[in-house]
Amino acid sequence: MSSQLVQRIQSELDSLVLIDPHTHINPHSAASTTLADIMGYHYYTELAHSAGLPREQIEEPGLGPKEKVGRLVEKLGDLDNTVQVSWLVEMCREFFNFEDDAVTQDNWETLYDTAEAKMAAPGWEQQVLQQSGLEKVFLTNDFDDPLTGFDTSLYVPCLRTDDLVFHFAKPETRERLEKATNISVSDAASLRAAIGQLFEHFTKNGAKACAISIPPTFSPAAVTDAEIEAVLASVLSGRELTPDESNLLSQFNFWTLAGFCAEYHLPFDLMIGVNRRVYEAGVFQGQDLYDSRVSLIQYRELFNSFPQVTFPVSVLAQTSNQELVSYAWIFPNVVTNGHWWYSNIPPHIELDCRSRLHAVPQTKQVGYYSDMYKLEFALPKFAMYRRILAKVLASDFVIDRGWSEERAISLGKLNLRGNVETIFNA
Amino acid sequence: MSSQLVQRIQSELDSLVLIDPHTHINPHSAASTTLADIMGYHYYTELAHSAGLPREQIEEPGLGPKEKVGRLVEKLGDLDNTVQVSWLVEMCREFFNFEDDAVTQDNWETLYDTAEAKMAAPGWEQQVLQQSGLEKVFLTNDFDDPLTGFDTSLYVPCLRTDDLVFHFAKPETRERLEKATNISVSDAASLRAAIGQLFEHFTKNGAKACAISIPPTFSPAAVTDAEIEAVLASVLSGRELTPDESNLLSQFNFWTLAGFCAEYHLPFDLMIGVNRRVYEAGVFQGQDLYDSRVSLIQYRELFNSFPQVTFPVSVLAQTSNQELVSYAWIFPNVVTNGHWWYSNIPPHIELDCRSRLHAVPQTKQVGYYSDMYKLEFALPKFAMYRRILAKVLASDFVIDRGWSEERAISLGKLNLRGNVETIFNA
Amino acid sequence: MSSQLVQRIQSELDSLVLIDPHTHINPHSAASTTLADIMGYHYYTELAHSAGLPREQIEEPGLGPKEKVGRLVEKLGDLDNTVQVSWLVEMCREFFNFEDDAVTQDNWETLYDTAEAKMAAPGWEQQVLQQSGLEKVFLTNDFDDPLTGFDTSLYVPCLRTDDLVFHFAKPETRERLEKATNISVSDAASLRAAIGQLFEHFTKNGAKACAISIPPTFSPAAVTDAEIEAVLASVLSGRELTPDESNLLSQFNFWTLAGFCAEYHLPFDLMIGVNRRVYEAGVFQGQDLYDSRVSLIQYRELFNSFPQVTFPVSVLAQTSNQELVSYAWIFPNVVTNGHWWYSNIPPHIELDCRSRLHAVPQTKQVGYYSDMYKLEFALPKFAMYRRILAKVLASDFVIDRGWSEERAISLGKLNLRGNVETIFNA
Repeated sequence: MSSQLVQRIQSELDSLVLIDPHTHINPHSAASTTLADIMGYHYYTELAHSAGLPREQIEEPGLGPKEKVGRLVEKLGDLDNTVQVSWLVEMCREFFNFEDDAVTQDNWETLYDTAEAKMAAPGWEQQVLQQSGLEKVFLTNDFDDPLTGFDTSLYVPCLRTDDLVFHFAKPETRERLEKATNISVSDAASLRAAIGQLFEHFTKNGAKACAISIPPTFSPAAVTDAEIEAVLASVLSGRELTPDESNLLSQFNFWTLAGFCAEYHLPFDLMIGVNRRVYEAGVFQGQDLYDSRVSLIQYRELFNSFPQVTFPVSVLAQTSNQELVSYAWIFPNVVTNGHWWYSNIPPHIELDCRSRLHAVPQTKQVGYYSDMYKLEFALPKFAMYRRILAKVLASDFVIDRGWSEERAISLGKLNLRGNVETIFNA
Repeated sequence: MSSQLVQRIQSELDSLVLIDPHTHINPHSAASTTLADIMGYHYYTELAHSAGLPREQIEEPGLGPKEKVGRLVEKLGDLDNTVQVSWLVEMCREFFNFEDDAVTQDNWETLYDTAEAKMAAPGWEQQVLQQSGLEKVFLTNDFDDPLTGFDTSLYVPCLRTDDLVFHFAKPETRERLEKATNISVSDAASLRAAIGQLFEHFTKNGAKACAISIPPTFSPAAVTDAEIEAVLASVLSGRELTPDESNLLSQFNFWTLAGFCAEYHLPFDLMIGVNRRVYEAGVFQGQDLYDSRVSLIQYRELFNSFPQVTFPVSVLAQTSNQELVSYAWIFPNVVTNGHWWYSNIPPHIELDCRSRLHAVPQTKQVGYYSDMYKLEFALPKFAMYRRILAKVLASDFVIDRGWSEERAISLGKLNLRGNVETIFNA
Repeated sequence: MSSQLVQRIQSELDSLVLIDPHTHINPHSAASTTLADIMGYHYYTELAHSAGLPREQIEEPGLGPKEKVGRLVEKLGDLDNTVQVSWLVEMCREFFNFEDDAVTQDNWETLYDTAEAKMAAPGWEQQVLQQSGLEKVFLTNDFDDPLTGFDTSLYVPCLRTDDLVFHFAKPETRERLEKATNISVSDAASLRAAIGQLFEHFTKNGAKACAISIPPTFSPAAVTDAEIEAVLASVLSGRELTPDESNLLSQFNFWTLAGFCAEYHLPFDLMIGVNRRVYEAGVFQGQDLYDSRVSLIQYRELFNSFPQVTFPVSVLAQTSNQELVSYAWIFPNVVTNGHWWYSNIPPHIELDCRSRLHAVPQTKQVGYYSDMYKLEFALPKFAMYRRILAKVLASDFVIDRGWSEERAISLGKLNLRGNVETIFNA
């Protein structure tokens, strides 16, 4: 396959201005202020810890940002091969005039200082957005986020609902809900009213999606008010729930959310498959893993019951991708969404991307999201995806199918940007 | 890898006349009469529906073939990327002088009329067979098919047994069985006799295989007459079975079929993993999906109990392919069979084909079957497979292993044709 | 991708002298004495049997080595495509001046005689070690192996523990344990003492690992002495255990082993996923298969409880590899280890190798082990791996990431050799 062909396609994809449909950006502090904001990303802390750096050294109370970076740099050599470290080097080269191949004990201090100076300059956030070709950035907002103090047409709110579905039995969740809605939950009806209030608040403020991450054991199901009242009463009385009751409550709240997604015309992002806190001695955000034995058949009732709701689905394990492709090929309301977390590495992206492009209607694929916590990450992550997409378009469409380059590029642009606009009404 | 090398291998494979070992062809109406026969294939209706075309528009009672095609064409743009639509375009180009890259609102009517005229010409069926290089076509016959009125040396009967195994509790199944065999089932012995009668009828008429598709939850097991009599009595009395009873009945009938496969020397095609009617609001034949959590360990007792029966096995999910490769590598009576349904797309075929060619005896692999409902599909589907096979032979055998082209081509021919002859005694 | 680039990288990797971290070599008879030692390897007998050679012909009592080879050669044509037969041809070419492309009925006798003569020459074992670039070879020793009569710095002992964990209820296991340790097991304390004795014996004799293969259903868990005493008493009294009791005993012994691995600073090799004796009519060592529905989540408690023990993990099914990559990325004590058994074929190795190199710290990957029974196999098996590794380094690192060749080669050397030294303290 000619590398010029790939280059030409990639350069067309590179010119595209993007909407990033899933991130963890804090809109009040979107860009980094030191390299510690970048290297504090859990990918680096967890990999450094995995390679032998004690958690206590990474998360020492009172540790200053420069010292933290210095400690992490000691382990970077062991992680040199990872695609995550390649993002770091690419960020440093693109944003901070870095010219070396690796961040090492010899060059990191200069890099740190350069980065700090650049980040402190006025307009850094705007510069990153512009250099990265980002037009809009979707957020992940707590359900009680006031959504004030930022430009919601640039930083688009999304209602994240893990706490409501999986931690409603915790008093603090219910207190936050009451505070956010002024509704005191006493039964199914008031619970539904409170959740409805959140949708009202979020959509008024420009929210474009509801989202949740889900453990592999969970199966959504319809639960009636009558079925849940006793469980709710137990929760409100402070009694600990049995696993079955707890699951029923999760199902009730999940189903209620899906109902409001229908009413408020919001896509419901499902991120399927994560087990939380598997490695409890791990660093912050570096404790979650999964059981790849999960199936979309668990979502059969949901997909059938809410034909009017679009479900952009992300899966954690590559083995789930074929099911995702097949379900999106059959169900009008199932859409493939990005390459999530442990699947977000080139060999998995490549295979997943190829199978989606061959078998899912082209209008039903959201190619990529960055999942970033700091703005600087969009550039290298989307660049990685664009390189893979350009290769797949060149090999599978231009060469194998005999498509023109223009046609392949159009498919790529739809995948990277067009579908984000239509599916999320962005 | 030199594209000339791939071309040379492919052109040798292209010259091969084929036996298609699994289709859904109706031998009384094997070829299409209008483009609606082709575009009515569930791949197009379900993908168009998935992309947003309401089922009611696709399946409107009384809808004429031309109008149906017109409606589907409106959605083809959204499916342009799929390999299924690439088959459509390839058929149109090969059979109907079509010269465009896509079937669109602007060109479809001319195409429709051209196709209709060609299909109406005398000898169309023969022309398609010849142009596609098809020597024999295996069918999928209902167990009560009289198998008359067609040339069984061209259209080879195969006994399809899903109804017997999974729908025997339905009165219509038992009525059909009684009508086909003149045996009134009253107990295990008469049930066995009736099933035996079917084998007698089918093998007398040249049948070359028994076949069944199986849900992921099913595990074949030996069931004695004594164990099944009470269940049979319940069925015959019209009482609804419990899930356990229903499963026992399925196991009994399945095991009985395997026994007759041994007696009548028929291979037993197992197509493992489909869940029926997952999306009940879907179009005809576009409602089935799967749960990839299935294992061939469920077939352990079967494979051990019938060493004299050859089991050509198809799996639905790619993740099952490695198990299939390993079981075919160990069990003499397990053979790999084609690339089924949701796995029948290039990225999955390629990986599955590679692992089979590297690890399963070359005499135990049936490379491909078309699964077609209309004759015109064999050409583009086998062409897709031959392109992938040629690439794999070139890269993995000629280049990586240093094989001569002739040797690689021989392996390809065995995979495409030779093994079909020996395994199915065709 | 330029084939010269791959060649240059491969030739650097080829020059590396290796430590093979997992084999089944018998140090008292490490090299072969006839071709029957090579072709008696279960890969050839099971594949020949799978292709139709009756077990009785392969395992006929009193069958001489030359006749056995003659019988197997009759079936080699059917296996010609397999990578396992490519190892055979490569061995014959590298060691026995064989110049043909295939071992056939026409050339095998000459080959047999040549091989026999070479193997009988003094220093054959040393010659194979040298020609294969092997510096040390890890063994798989029964727990009651005296470990005498061989050079443990060349043939490194490893304590294999399947019998202790999964067959402790068999009287012969307990008799062997008593004989090996002079400790009569009467309760949890004496059982622990006996197992501790084995670690003392093995580490005194230079053992570098404890190892076990595990069925997909097993989940390690901590079991207290109090919980196990009644079960132990039953075992000792000769009463047959229930499945639950049997599992508890396995868990107790497994956990005890992990504890001693911590105390004696031995890595604990876990080979996860094999079902034994699935095909009982199969040839010797050709009866085992698997259920790919296994998850590393089953090892959650183990990995959390023994942070000081390194677990080099091998998985049987490719679908488990992504979990392995993810767990090694998060848990400091989980290391990826080789490409085991049914995954040890190029298409699976390639994808598994790529995902590991992109996402697991480079210091936590043991690239390959031969798993061989006779010394001659290391050469073709490691050659296969080195070819794949060289391709991945060229495509994914030099080309896609812009690395220098030197840097890519360093990563390859760490993967092939450096990590074996550090992880196994070899």
